Amino acid sequence: MDTLVTNGTLLTMRGERLGIVDSGAVGVDDGRIRYVGPESDAPDPSDADDVVDAEGGVVMPGLVNAHAHMAHTLLRGGAQDVPEIEWMNRALGPLSAHADEEDRIAGTRLGVLEAVRGGATTICEYAGEVGTLVEAVYQPLGVDVVAVETINEVPDERGDLGPRELYPFDREQGEEALARADRLFERFGDDPLVTPAYGPQALDMVSPELLGTVQEHAHDRGAKLHLHTAQGEREAIQIEERYGADESTVSVLDELGIVDDSLVAVHCHGATPAERRRLADGGAAMLGCPSSIAAIDGIVPPVAEFREYGAAVGIGTDQAPGPGHHSMVREARTAATLSKVEHTDPTALTAPEALRLATVGGAEALGIDDEVGTLEEGTRADFLVVDTDRLSTAPAVDSPLHTAIPNLVYSTTGREVRDVFVAGEAIVRDGAFVDADPEAAVADATERARALYERASVDWRAADSELVAAVDDGWL
Amino acid sequence: MDTLVTNGTLLTMRGERLGIVDSGAVGVDDGRIRYVGPESDAPDPSDADDVVDAEGGVVMPGLVNAHAHMAHTLLRGGAQDVPEIEWMNRALGPLSAHADEEDRIAGTRLGVLEAVRGGATTICEYAGEVGTLVEAVYQPLGVDVVAVETINEVPDERGDLGPRELYPFDREQGEEALARADRLFERFGDDPLVTPAYGPQALDMVSPELLGTVQEHAHDRGAKLHLHTAQGEREAIQIEERYGADESTVSVLDELGIVDDSLVAVHCHGATPAERRRLADGGAAMLGCPSSIAAIDGIVPPVAEFREYGAAVGIGTDQAPGPGHHSMVREARTAATLSKVEHTDPTALTAPEALRLATVGGAEALGIDDEVGTLEEGTRADFLVVDTDRLSTAPAVDSPLHTAIPNLVYSTTGREVRDVFVAGEAIVRDGAFVDADPEAAVADATERARALYERASVDWRAADSELVAAVDDGWL
Repeated sequence: MDTLVTNGTLLTMRGERLGIVDSGAVGVDDGRIRYVGPESDAPDPSDADDVVDAEGGVVMPGLVNAHAHMAHTLLRGGAQDVPEIEWMNRALGPLSAHADEEDRIAGTRLGVLEAVRGGATTICEYAGEVGTLVEAVYQPLGVDVVAVETINEVPDERGDLGPRELYPFDREQGEEALARADRLFERFGDDPLVTPAYGPQALDMVSPELLGTVQEHAHDRGAKLHLHTAQGEREAIQIEERYGADESTVSVLDELGIVDDSLVAVHCHGATPAERRRLADGGAAMLGCPSSIAAIDGIVPPVAEFREYGAAVGIGTDQAPGPGHHSMVREARTAATLSKVEHTDPTALTAPEALRLATVGGAEALGIDDEVGTLEEGTRADFLVVDTDRLSTAPAVDSPLHTAIPNLVYSTTGREVRDVFVAGEAIVRDGAFVDADPEAAVADATERARALYERASVDWRAADSELVAAVDDGWL
Repeated sequence: MDTLVTNGTLLTMRGERLGIVDSGAVGVDDGRIRYVGPESDAPDPSDADDVVDAEGGVVMPGLVNAHAHMAHTLLRGGAQDVPEIEWMNRALGPLSAHADEEDRIAGTRLGVLEAVRGGATTICEYAGEVGTLVEAVYQPLGVDVVAVETINEVPDERGDLGPRELYPFDREQGEEALARADRLFERFGDDPLVTPAYGPQALDMVSPELLGTVQEHAHDRGAKLHLHTAQGEREAIQIEERYGADESTVSVLDELGIVDDSLVAVHCHGATPAERRRLADGGAAMLGCPSSIAAIDGIVPPVAEFREYGAAVGIGTDQAPGPGHHSMVREARTAATLSKVEHTDPTALTAPEALRLATVGGAEALGIDDEVGTLEEGTRADFLVVDTDRLSTAPAVDSPLHTAIPNLVYSTTGREVRDVFVAGEAIVRDGAFVDADPEAAVADATERARALYERASVDWRAADSELVAAVDDGWL
């Protein structure tokens, strides 16, 4: 046996609840979990190459960050507290237009290290040229990545269109992106930690013809199709103009036959309750980003609703500008807190339910729950040891209830994650990265960010978002 | 000069904005700030006994946790995700009834150390026998405390009253509490870090006669009167039964003449918009606890509204069971996030505004802004050095905007607070407590919590909150 984790409270996520095992142990061999259960029945520690004493803390599946655009982490703090219509075009856009490939890699590295330090072992990365990020950041670090290639037919240079003027579509641009997505399957075919997927960006940004082709490719490869779905007013107007005043994103998707169990619908806050139910009933999974949609739109995404409809639901941190962070425990807390106020119901989305969203829920939504998201014999050994005896989480009591479970969600800073293992390899041990160099990543990102903001500052000021006035007023 | 802090971005909170000073320095002598301004004009470092290099991070006033019941930190994780009507009587109550004085001290110590580690330098502690907690925890640690003595005329043993049956009042119990509050002024009169205040618990728990007397005592001493105000249905029903069907907490307070600038109204989520404005116009300050009221009631407290009405507004963490934590940066983030979704407006309560709430806003509401909450020459030297070059907060860029400002609110885990000074004394230095022993506090609290839950487990189960079923179902 390679590794034996002892002396922990296991939250296995097996079954429909948390699968709690007191005084449990986890045995790992060859990157896979070989034993999960009571310590009393565990393999002998003397037969293990490495014994990890959890010291009474929690041992749980690695967290699944189910939707993120990590490159934008370089621009953290650059675009928030602005009106929704300003966020992309007047705040983030004038900055991100100046990012080059090395900037995107540096931002991705910063965001991924932050996420992993906080307990994420799987990240769903949604980006153009995503393969570059996988090779530069994810594979060297050795964490699981669902690599979603963005497919978008709208040219970057689309001029100053009014909201009711239809975006032009460039089919060639879209086909090139589709080809890049296809190539991911060969390029990373021999890496079990990389799961490619298709990312038609949104219904207003791809033609129905290309969307149908993408779906065929996804079906052929048993892959998922990740689509930002009903994410706001701008999209809704484009759909009305293109498909008719009675149409909505979900109605068009339905007519096109896109709503099936390969669809992963992201955000969905602009869909009506009936449309949300239609997506769930049609087999689609849902990914919500509560911190992001609250920050950028002032809206609570319908995570709790999709869960009630029986859909597979995961949560993710989206991008740092706006919500600010890539901590999955914080995202779980935000999901629970926002669901409570959305429904004026303190029982909405409980801490244990939020923990399932952040682990097995995300794995199910991404279609990788046979490998990650639970602690089960035979699955990939992605797991965490979390200290429960810190100022921020104590006291840990096991009876009559496990206080560590709510405290993991509502109290942790994220720094209580002590050990992070992926496929049996320690990525973080005793709170420090085994191989990665976070200081170098921070220094590189900071240098690049300063240069980027300098390049972009004239454009940023010309775009005249509310942040410009905030700077001039002494707020920023 | 005792201490000179160099090489920081200062957020002084002077004036109406953040009072940003790039490349700033802070000089401290005899517990007070003697210099705040550009490093180029600062006293010579060779004249300082201690030079603190902020290394490009942020130097800002200590955070003000403006409302907290720290003793309940012992029961963190013991009462959340339950219906509002269950929270006190069926979840927290059956546990807290078994807490003795040593338990309350241990819980307070745990919560205060957590808060201070996260950057709080002032805590408003609201408790019965608050002087005991001040002597046992706050004075030995050396942080600022606003000590509010709870005044309550409702006997603990009030039997099983229906919601429309009036609580009995025990005037003698109330007078004893008032006398305890009065004594705080002599008991701590020579400690400038202790600010006593009066805490009539809520209008349904004190008679109008006693409330009037409390107000007189507060006026005589220039002290504040902290009152949980319009905090829920149970209170509203008692007010209707006692004062008439047309009456509400705020209408009665107004008729009794309690609404003035000595009133500190806590929570206020049950007040109508007109009543909230009446409180603000009458000079009352407001304290909101967004994490707590979201967790316990599923409601967003009207922090942003009172701010717009021109009231002095602070935020606090209330108690750990429910919201979970005592991190003021997390509370600032929660206040901003919840205000955005409450108003469907991403510009509601911006990060800089949230930082003011967590510092000078709280100080103003507590009536101590002449001493704390800003960095100004002559004020008490309560300040923080916060690292901005961590995975969770980088990159820090100073131009064209200061990304550190939103990142402090939206991105920090709380562990980026490197140094905490109160009255010029280092309480935390380089991330570690100078004198306090957090491991011992955690161990003591954990041992006491386990014993308490064991004593309470029969009562807890008999109270039959939804948590009991959650345990039996394998969720907790």
